[in-house]
Amino acid sequence: MHSEELTIEGRNAVIEAFRSGKTIDKIFVLDGCQDGPIRTITREARKQDTIIQYVKKERLDQISQTGKHQGVIAHAAAYEYADIEDMFTLAEKKGEAPFIVLLDNIEDPHNLGAIIRTANQAGAHGVIIPKRHAVGLTATVAKTSAGALNYTPVAKVTNLSHTIEQLKERGMWFVCADMDGEVMYNLDLKGPIGVVIGNEGEGVGRLVKEKCDFVAKIPMKGDIDSLNASVAMGILSFEIVRQRGEWK
Amino acid sequence: MHSEELTIEGRNAVIEAFRSGKTIDKIFVLDGCQDGPIRTITREARKQDTIIQYVKKERLDQISQTGKHQGVIAHAAAYEYADIEDMFTLAEKKGEAPFIVLLDNIEDPHNLGAIIRTANQAGAHGVIIPKRHAVGLTATVAKTSAGALNYTPVAKVTNLSHTIEQLKERGMWFVCADMDGEVMYNLDLKGPIGVVIGNEGEGVGRLVKEKCDFVAKIPMKGDIDSLNASVAMGILSFEIVRQRGEWK
Repeated sequence: MHSEELTIEGRNAVIEAFRSGKTIDKIFVLDGCQDGPIRTITREARKQDTIIQYVKKERLDQISQTGKHQGVIAHAAAYEYADIEDMFTLAEKKGEAPFIVLLDNIEDPHNLGAIIRTANQAGAHGVIIPKRHAVGLTATVAKTSAGALNYTPVAKVTNLSHTIEQLKERGMWFVCADMDGEVMYNLDLKGPIGVVIGNEGEGVGRLVKEKCDFVAKIPMKGDIDSLNASVAMGILSFEIVRQRGEWK
Repeated sequence: MHSEELTIEGRNAVIEAFRSGKTIDKIFVLDGCQDGPIRTITREARKQDTIIQYVKKERLDQISQTGKHQGVIAHAAAYEYADIEDMFTLAEKKGEAPFIVLLDNIEDPHNLGAIIRTANQAGAHGVIIPKRHAVGLTATVAKTSAGALNYTPVAKVTNLSHTIEQLKERGMWFVCADMDGEVMYNLDLKGPIGVVIGNEGEGVGRLVKEKCDFVAKIPMKGDIDSLNASVAMGILSFEIVRQRGEWK
């Protein structure tokens, strides 16, 4: 994983980026533009599950850093994404039960960065984020992670519920953080575990929550609604650290 | 506590603000300016322990929002500060042992806001911040606290070490978060407690640390240096919640 250029502008540059295997998070295409090169680009984008957003010329001009976008601008990942397999390899290498953090649509890059940083410190073997409706590995995320992005693998998946099902087949248990669950101190959080953290406003989505084996409640005593997503993730993750007893 | 105007400009307005009892965090005064009204202002500022910063005209013009600063600009607190006594009253009213969070020079308003939010949720009875070298209750802090600033008293003190000594005389114990301490799960964190969290870069200062009864280590397993200050505060605070058993 290494830091990279973020914005790629112009038809040839974007086609080249796709061909080189670079991870493109999103492309902006001039609305109504349908010529050959643009169609090549959107075809590649669909193949790789890149988000395509059709925008007006004014918007494209605004996003453009070079002023020469030729109707297409791509946002590449600042860091390369990992595979989920890398997380299992890492756990095995350390001789530990897999501990993976799954994020259900975290939108704030500062939260994502802080979560990757905390995941690293809690000894998690990786972080899984969804492709859509969530922030990717931008430069801000990298900075906020305080270097953790160089060590903790981050993978991107199309469907979080589907990924949970696949990982369950490999023996993992899933716990999500939510207010209507059982107090986390009463749950057994040892063993191969996936921790699901919901988005800042709405928490964990219904479909994802239904896939979870446990719902863990952080016992809040306050006058307000909730905790910051990265703080909640830290509290739940270190309860897992405590229960696993690896600090002894 | 309520949201207020932040910047006060001009001699009369600033003198008025001091006289009305408003909390002024800091004043900027034109370097070399020594006339009567300015001297009245700086005298008031010294009396109230307000930070005075002498700046050149260009800087003052830059800070000014009205363009009519007349050589002085004051930054008032966006929220009113509380007294430490309010925290003891709150604890007593709830029938709980006092639980207070002390921040050693937190500089990032987002961190301060997240900490106040977490303090509220962990059932802490207040947050104490130092007057100097730290962010105050700005509008960003209020926003990031997600409303917690309306419920959790925040007090400002001149000298954190001195405050710790005074609170020790009232039967409180102090624990600070630092890497060279004892793993927090092994410490007894019940009873009347003050939790000291250090600044983002340097941790807890030496003088403050020496006053603490315990040094608590969050058992970090990662490849990087530290946790985000607000996440660390959340993890340590909820270990206190767990030990106190008030969630049962």
